[in-house]
Amino acid sequence: MSTDPLVVFTPSGKRGRFPAGTPILTAARQLGVDLDSVCGGRGICSKCQITPSYGEFSKHGVTVHEDALSEWNAVEERYDQKRGLAKGRRLGCQATVQGDVVIDVPPESQVHKQVVRKRAEARDIVMSPSVRIHLVEVEEPDMHEPSGDLERLRAALKAQWDVDVARCDPHVLGSLQPALRKGGWKVTVAIHEGDAQNAASIMQVWPGFYEGSVYGLAVDLGSTTIAAHLCDLQSGDVIASSGVMNPQIRFGEDLMSRVSYSMMNEGGAREMTDAVRAGMNTLFEQIAAEAGIERSEILDTVFVCNPVMHHLFLGIDPFELGQAPFALATSDALHLKAQDLGLELHPSARAYILPCIAGHVGADAAAVALSEAPDKSEDLVLVVDVGTNAEILLGNTEQVLACSSPTGPAFEGAQISSGQRAAPGAIERLEIDPETKEPRFRIIGCELWSDEEGFTEAVGATGITGICGSGIIEAIAEMRMAGIVDASGLIGSAEQVGSARCIVDGRTNAYLVWDGTAEGGPRITVTNPDIRAIQMAKAALYSGARLLMDKFGVDKVDRVVLAGAFGAHISPKHAMVLGMIPDCPLEKVTSAGNAAGTGARIALLNTAGRGEIEETVRRIVKIETAVEPRFQEHFVNASAIPNSAEPFPILGSVVSLPEVSFNTGGGEGEKGGGRRRRRRG
Amino acid sequence: MSTDPLVVFTPSGKRGRFPAGTPILTAARQLGVDLDSVCGGRGICSKCQITPSYGEFSKHGVTVHEDALSEWNAVEERYDQKRGLAKGRRLGCQATVQGDVVIDVPPESQVHKQVVRKRAEARDIVMSPSVRIHLVEVEEPDMHEPSGDLERLRAALKAQWDVDVARCDPHVLGSLQPALRKGGWKVTVAIHEGDAQNAASIMQVWPGFYEGSVYGLAVDLGSTTIAAHLCDLQSGDVIASSGVMNPQIRFGEDLMSRVSYSMMNEGGAREMTDAVRAGMNTLFEQIAAEAGIERSEILDTVFVCNPVMHHLFLGIDPFELGQAPFALATSDALHLKAQDLGLELHPSARAYILPCIAGHVGADAAAVALSEAPDKSEDLVLVVDVGTNAEILLGNTEQVLACSSPTGPAFEGAQISSGQRAAPGAIERLEIDPETKEPRFRIIGCELWSDEEGFTEAVGATGITGICGSGIIEAIAEMRMAGIVDASGLIGSAEQVGSARCIVDGRTNAYLVWDGTAEGGPRITVTNPDIRAIQMAKAALYSGARLLMDKFGVDKVDRVVLAGAFGAHISPKHAMVLGMIPDCPLEKVTSAGNAAGTGARIALLNTAGRGEIEETVRRIVKIETAVEPRFQEHFVNASAIPNSAEPFPILGSVVSLPEVSFNTGGGEGEKGGGRRRRRRG
Repeated sequence: MSTDPLVVFTPSGKRGRFPAGTPILTAARQLGVDLDSVCGGRGICSKCQITPSYGEFSKHGVTVHEDALSEWNAVEERYDQKRGLAKGRRLGCQATVQGDVVIDVPPESQVHKQVVRKRAEARDIVMSPSVRIHLVEVEEPDMHEPSGDLERLRAALKAQWDVDVARCDPHVLGSLQPALRKGGWKVTVAIHEGDAQNAASIMQVWPGFYEGSVYGLAVDLGSTTIAAHLCDLQSGDVIASSGVMNPQIRFGEDLMSRVSYSMMNEGGAREMTDAVRAGMNTLFEQIAAEAGIERSEILDTVFVCNPVMHHLFLGIDPFELGQAPFALATSDALHLKAQDLGLELHPSARAYILPCIAGHVGADAAAVALSEAPDKSEDLVLVVDVGTNAEILLGNTEQVLACSSPTGPAFEGAQISSGQRAAPGAIERLEIDPETKEPRFRIIGCELWSDEEGFTEAVGATGITGICGSGIIEAIAEMRMAGIVDASGLIGSAEQVGSARCIVDGRTNAYLVWDGTAEGGPRITVTNPDIRAIQMAKAALYSGARLLMDKFGVDKVDRVVLAGAFGAHISPKHAMVLGMIPDCPLEKVTSAGNAAGTGARIALLNTAGRGEIEETVRRIVKIETAVEPRFQEHFVNASAIPNSAEPFPILGSVVSLPEVSFNTGGGEGEKGGGRRRRRRG
Repeated sequence: MSTDPLVVFTPSGKRGRFPAGTPILTAARQLGVDLDSVCGGRGICSKCQITPSYGEFSKHGVTVHEDALSEWNAVEERYDQKRGLAKGRRLGCQATVQGDVVIDVPPESQVHKQVVRKRAEARDIVMSPSVRIHLVEVEEPDMHEPSGDLERLRAALKAQWDVDVARCDPHVLGSLQPALRKGGWKVTVAIHEGDAQNAASIMQVWPGFYEGSVYGLAVDLGSTTIAAHLCDLQSGDVIASSGVMNPQIRFGEDLMSRVSYSMMNEGGAREMTDAVRAGMNTLFEQIAAEAGIERSEILDTVFVCNPVMHHLFLGIDPFELGQAPFALATSDALHLKAQDLGLELHPSARAYILPCIAGHVGADAAAVALSEAPDKSEDLVLVVDVGTNAEILLGNTEQVLACSSPTGPAFEGAQISSGQRAAPGAIERLEIDPETKEPRFRIIGCELWSDEEGFTEAVGATGITGICGSGIIEAIAEMRMAGIVDASGLIGSAEQVGSARCIVDGRTNAYLVWDGTAEGGPRITVTNPDIRAIQMAKAALYSGARLLMDKFGVDKVDRVVLAGAFGAHISPKHAMVLGMIPDCPLEKVTSAGNAAGTGARIALLNTAGRGEIEETVRRIVKIETAVEPRFQEHFVNASAIPNSAEPFPILGSVVSLPEVSFNTGGGEGEKGGGRRRRRRG
């Protein structure tokens, strides 16, 4: 035995001696090397591709000769001609050991391959989806042992794949016998691995080897838009991404107006449930068409959403979420059939809905927690997902706190005189010259700044239509830095500021950003009520973060992550000037993009992620801002706009500004001088 | 502590000392006495009724004084006025211990009460249904602990009832919050206890205490009729029984013609699936109306059926069951949602389908095995369920064998010249005077014999319409005993027999039972082809039984159970004269009635019964008659009609009759003189 050839696998380093003639796939399985195979070594699926290395490997103590593996065989030749096999690659099930050899398992040949996330700080996703496909060879029926075809299929799955499948989905029963016979007693099966509430189950049976793949959807169900990623559940690739407006918009722009709609209208909740489900089906049809697959090839789905959308999607009247104590009908993660949610996908497609953290902190926040993993951060990280409500997470490996803060829709451009949604024509970036007080800006859909040559032509017919959320933040922050606005949020007069752009607007002043009236366009101003609306919104956001910091016993955080579409567009500098977020070195403020959507994708591709976030959610300490007196205190103190024309170095905490000197002493005293707690490590 | 009063429960004999003031229900729970309660001791449900006994109980060493229990209280008074409490009864949750006392728990107050079966030899059914209802008090929501209402309900179920419920059915989500609030945080929940494939789940939530009950259906899905028992899942009572014709009849009278229909017609199997499901829904509507309940109050269902009906009901094309090797798509028991089967009941009603034993031995045979429990019999018992196929079980505690035998439809009156289904007007009993060769008979729907006074008037407009299955058996057996038919099955001529009732019928003779032509009625005869048909059928039945006896290594059985509607109507004496069943003392031949339906009822009321029959089916030795050469031998040898005008004492085995002397020696020799094996005990 000791003279058997040595097989060393990289990158795992696992090694063992195997008799000459042993297929590499067999060696890998015996050593527990993660080498994929759908066909079980029949030379059909090509998932087990490996790369042998030749030469001397002093590290491994091996010299690999050219004849270390069996010769290229007919199966490999056929596969190469049909599909193409990269140079140097072999099929692990065909190439057999002949001498000492070093075998590299490329990432794409691993079952638990890693899906790389673009951001440097983000962890990769380890592939471990809830649905897998396997080729299996089933014993033919025997009158003397009259077990059913399903029972023999289950026995074969156990024997050949070590998979225990308790049952099959009802719709599979009818297709099982024809598939087995058409496939000559070989079938490919899609298996759901089961979960806390359901045993593993056969979802689909194809005759012979199924060449296709199986797909899943990660869906971010927002109040305004429904966005989905369609993922290949074998490769982990996102093969299409798409979004539609949430059709519930017609029942109310924001969540509370939808809650009201259901309160005022008999059957209103049901109407909204039907609307959102119909919207999903439209989106799924669209995304499947884009990817060139059928909706029926989608076997798994994951949903994240805020609590109101969560309830409406599930067919629960959100009435209770509209009033204290904001009781969720259910907070735990849900494992459902997609058809129970009215979704038209594969007949036994599953639906997993992430847990809600609290009545105001939904499954979307849970998804952000899964994506950004504050519970795994050594640094103290503040994660802010800004929407109509801001969901705020603060934590590190020690503990994670969560709350929601009612920012209202101002950050999304609503309730702003010249505000609009982020769409072509909207001002999204703005700078004001501190000397001249003149603005320059960029609009969505145009690469040029407004003072650059060719801007007018580039803007073209779209025109300049308004200011979106990120634009208004920059505008107000720039106005503050240029001395146009004082700390209390008042815009100075033309004389005070020294600019004709400051115009009288009722009893206060406004700042004229753009006057398009000569060309029949809008007159875009930032008014004092606009500033008030933003002040309220940013105070809510800041107060929520500040409340969590109090609870954590700290007065600064190590880093800030801005999540959500809005978070991806705002400028950290301006957000900090405005006092939206607590002080933090600017380079420590990053955008996570659609972290909720990413969290949904993680839960789709990695079932361990589901258990992980369920556990994290159980451990998260929930803070209800509505009943925290300190939230109100912070809120009152946070409405000012920090007085500084010098944004860097970092501003002091807003509450310390002299001009907003409400009595906050008592509250601080109660903390007993509590400093930031010791962190582990 | 030792001076605390002693509480003795009967009939369990459990006893313990409890401080004065302890409610009887509490004492019962602590001692593990089986005392029911739905409301958990709130004096609402009255399930915990008990009867205190007073006086001296030397057996228990207790003297019970009049003041041994607390006085009749307001709750009991209210209940008595509202519903009535039987004399001597107290509510176990209200009456408290004051002194030594003997408490009788009446059967109806036990959770695991026994449902008594009528037949002396049948085991009672211990109540243990899969659906239970409990009143539960749920904690109100708290903003500081923002768990969902469902999660608090689950916690309450665990704390108050020690029930672990992993989830709730999707349709419940929407009704949960209103029910909790309407019920003042008390709700009654219906819980499915879960099974091998599904976690326990909440099926329904009612505000406050639910006064109603929950119901289940035990369904015997036959080729010809669908019969159902509607049972109260709390009391175990059958509250209604009903049946409808299987609408699949229009696709073919017998199973094989339905299999052919699906083979010859694209979508034929689907048509038949839809038809049988529609028939079920009609039946369920009818049975619910009869019982005065809504279909939506039916939460559990159990189905038994032969393999072809099993497949068609499940939406599986029965094609494979029509040809060797008769492969079942699935043989194991199935746990489904009723709605997956197109059934319109409670939205989360469950469906349990008993396992099939083999391709020809279905879930109906499994149900017969559950009802008649051959595996628990010390005697060797032969259980025969006669239908278009006869399912035959032979066994004792040592082992159980099963097979199916293709008897064809003759026993059901088909293929018989004057045959008809068992319906008013059909001759069901018949006697022939051995001297005069004159018949007398009874028809279904009339209590009088044909030679009794008033018969003609009693028959009235119905008339005498034909002979049903049990009638033809008696007719032929009586003809044999009267010497009208010889052992080979030939009817003698008028001269040979000495009766003008023997009339020429083509190249053979027929026996005239009744000539109604004068009144425009039918001429009812037993022809030689009729006898042939019955000979074939009984030979098939006998051969199947005989084959199992060979396999068991015995040449007689201790007792015979005739199951099925047909089995309930045939006369054991005549069946034995005809040679349908092996020799056995006549008093050891009993009828089990609809044993398959009873098995379904057991599985409905007692979930342990489900596991039991699944285990039994796994252990049953399946014999496929189609591939057993000895079956053919027995069949050929069994077509004769035993030659005896003296049915008692018992006839010799048919194969030993001299006039049918085909060579069977070889087969016997192979058994190696195998005698009946030792049985345990």
